[in-house]
Amino acid sequence: MAASPLSISASHSEPIDAVALGDALTALRAAPPLVQCLTNVVVSQWTANVLLAAGAAPAMVDNAHEAAGFAAISGGVLVNLGTPFDDTAAAMLAAVSSAGEAGVPWVLDPVAVGVMQWRTTLAQQLITANAPAIIRGNASEILALAGGSGGKGVDSIDSAEDAVEVAKVLARQHGTVVAVSGPIDHLTDGERVVMLANGHPMMTQVTGVGCALGALMAAFAGVVADPLLAAAAATAVLTVAADEAAIHSRGPGSFAVGLLDELAALTAHHLIEHVRILAE
Amino acid sequence: MAASPLSISASHSEPIDAVALGDALTALRAAPPLVQCLTNVVVSQWTANVLLAAGAAPAMVDNAHEAAGFAAISGGVLVNLGTPFDDTAAAMLAAVSSAGEAGVPWVLDPVAVGVMQWRTTLAQQLITANAPAIIRGNASEILALAGGSGGKGVDSIDSAEDAVEVAKVLARQHGTVVAVSGPIDHLTDGERVVMLANGHPMMTQVTGVGCALGALMAAFAGVVADPLLAAAAATAVLTVAADEAAIHSRGPGSFAVGLLDELAALTAHHLIEHVRILAE
Amino acid sequence: MAASPLSISASHSEPIDAVALGDALTALRAAPPLVQCLTNVVVSQWTANVLLAAGAAPAMVDNAHEAAGFAAISGGVLVNLGTPFDDTAAAMLAAVSSAGEAGVPWVLDPVAVGVMQWRTTLAQQLITANAPAIIRGNASEILALAGGSGGKGVDSIDSAEDAVEVAKVLARQHGTVVAVSGPIDHLTDGERVVMLANGHPMMTQVTGVGCALGALMAAFAGVVADPLLAAAAATAVLTVAADEAAIHSRGPGSFAVGLLDELAALTAHHLIEHVRILAE
Repeated sequence: MAASPLSISASHSEPIDAVALGDALTALRAAPPLVQCLTNVVVSQWTANVLLAAGAAPAMVDNAHEAAGFAAISGGVLVNLGTPFDDTAAAMLAAVSSAGEAGVPWVLDPVAVGVMQWRTTLAQQLITANAPAIIRGNASEILALAGGSGGKGVDSIDSAEDAVEVAKVLARQHGTVVAVSGPIDHLTDGERVVMLANGHPMMTQVTGVGCALGALMAAFAGVVADPLLAAAAATAVLTVAADEAAIHSRGPGSFAVGLLDELAALTAHHLIEHVRILAE
Repeated sequence: MAASPLSISASHSEPIDAVALGDALTALRAAPPLVQCLTNVVVSQWTANVLLAAGAAPAMVDNAHEAAGFAAISGGVLVNLGTPFDDTAAAMLAAVSSAGEAGVPWVLDPVAVGVMQWRTTLAQQLITANAPAIIRGNASEILALAGGSGGKGVDSIDSAEDAVEVAKVLARQHGTVVAVSGPIDHLTDGERVVMLANGHPMMTQVTGVGCALGALMAAFAGVVADPLLAAAAATAVLTVAADEAAIHSRGPGSFAVGLLDELAALTAHHLIEHVRILAE
Repeated sequence: MAASPLSISASHSEPIDAVALGDALTALRAAPPLVQCLTNVVVSQWTANVLLAAGAAPAMVDNAHEAAGFAAISGGVLVNLGTPFDDTAAAMLAAVSSAGEAGVPWVLDPVAVGVMQWRTTLAQQLITANAPAIIRGNASEILALAGGSGGKGVDSIDSAEDAVEVAKVLARQHGTVVAVSGPIDHLTDGERVVMLANGHPMMTQVTGVGCALGALMAAFAGVVADPLLAAAAATAVLTVAADEAAIHSRGPGSFAVGLLDELAALTAHHLIEHVRILAE
């Protein structure tokens, strides 16, 4: 689907500041993008609920019969490699190719790439079929995708700071945005680097918060033309809401519940006031 | 499984009033029906928890080796087309045929039928194999099943009011009950129409509330003989509990948690007092 | 993976008392074990969140391409038969064999074994391939595994007390620990019997609490050498946290949220103070 009339047609040279992030949220709420999610079975409900709470329209279409057709009518497509199977891997390849033909942006979340060979090969195949608009991962995953060594399991053993130079190379290589999640999120299109400093350690005590971030990036990629702005807006929305949720939480259970509440309550005004963008 | 001795053997000519709905809830709690769910991976946990909270006994048996055998010993079977795969589609066809032979009622939730061809064909195959006791969907899905055009994604773009006449035709065609979900729920067996007016917009901000409604219909179909009463009781139970949950919620996260709490706390007395049945 | 240097190398003749259970929790938090879960789609998110809240590191690697390789680098492996498919059954067999070669302990949760033939055969194949360190189930499942009749669906129709003698025989037969869940949990290695009496009926109103217990056993099996101590520590941690959560809950929705909060907040000191170990 081409960018809708309500999309923000930000030029890539416009600054990514707090107001631009707030405007992206306003655009998302004004025209909820249809977000096709081919994600892992662990986080599918959570991902759908995060997208709904933020204001997007999730659709978990991940079978090989329908994935390609649906990608062509989506606003954005998420491919998350958390629990791939032969069936869903075929659906992912079909969806990504179809998205490319239809001009629909897609986001790759390369969960545990580098740790396991099969999904690492799958990630490379997906990128080769159609370069994603955004790749979002932790530092270990990004280093592994760039050809370095991987982490152990799904948690990162490297820091976002360590990965940012590699991320820039990876971004230029594929003409994509690379978002490295961490206590400070580093996002780059190979030239520009955006650093965002919201969020709370509680985010690592709930499964799928990073996965939900990838989904939000696919949502914002459906409403703003600049993938770096889309990735930054998703990151800001999730982490500013997380800051609020952490205040009212007793632990990871109530934090997850509160995060959905805060995402739904988040206004562009609150986002602009509270987002912390660091100077490079 | 044939109707148990504790089932309400309501004749189809008995009125579907608040007391009948309350009695259905009492019957469910007195003899929790075993509900086999072949549903989508997004909502499987949520669906099981809704059934448990309401008082039923969920069993998510959806592999092709076991689905048919288990259907024969279930009180009711749910088939939800949210995320079908080849494996689960085969299991659905086997379960539905087995349910037919065993006299076990089943409920079809045709998620996104009309939007995608593969699942639309699958839905028709299921109905042909053994007409469901109840079909539950939004207006777009019901219109699509009846041969009209479908919606876009999983949200309805048509209104329940627009769909009710088509629903009556569909109900008569297959000898089934058709439940069209919306701000006002319209349920019909082709002759009678029941309109229920509880519920809250928050229900559309949490994934799987409609899916859970289909599951509750399969549960009530296991304890009352009249499928229209079963569909109405499930709708009333879920929407009256949702009214309560919405009062105490800060957003969609706490609403979903509260809905489970309220389902477990719901009494037949409260249901009878608060259900809103509209005159035709 | 061999036991890490931080593991408690408890001899099998050491007593399993409250202090030993508290020390096991301290060991888990000091060196979070990587727990590979091949579990059912209903509870995968919940299981991951329970493990994270308790202090372990979950990894849901359940495809046939990667399961064996990952098992060899895990601290413990969970195999739960709730919703097996051909794909995941193959992955389970591969993971279990690999775990055996690598000396990694694994836990079998034989959900609904005895009710359905395919998974009953699968359970026997898994045990034959490599005897699990721990088998955890309800009384009906344990009786069925031992060759008796099974329950109906996923709920037990037998009592833990009835199953304990059979559990001892099963434990000796396979050189494993058998944990029979119920209002009083009975755990045995064929010689010793540990009875734990914490927990709340609310645990049966939320799907996957038993499944999460199996996952916690796999986590503790990764940090303590005695499988009976591992099974007891997991049981104590979950049920003592459940006691706390039940106090603050309005129903099953808030109970599940609170259980995650309480697991994260649980200290070894609180565990030692509140665990109820019954004399044989």
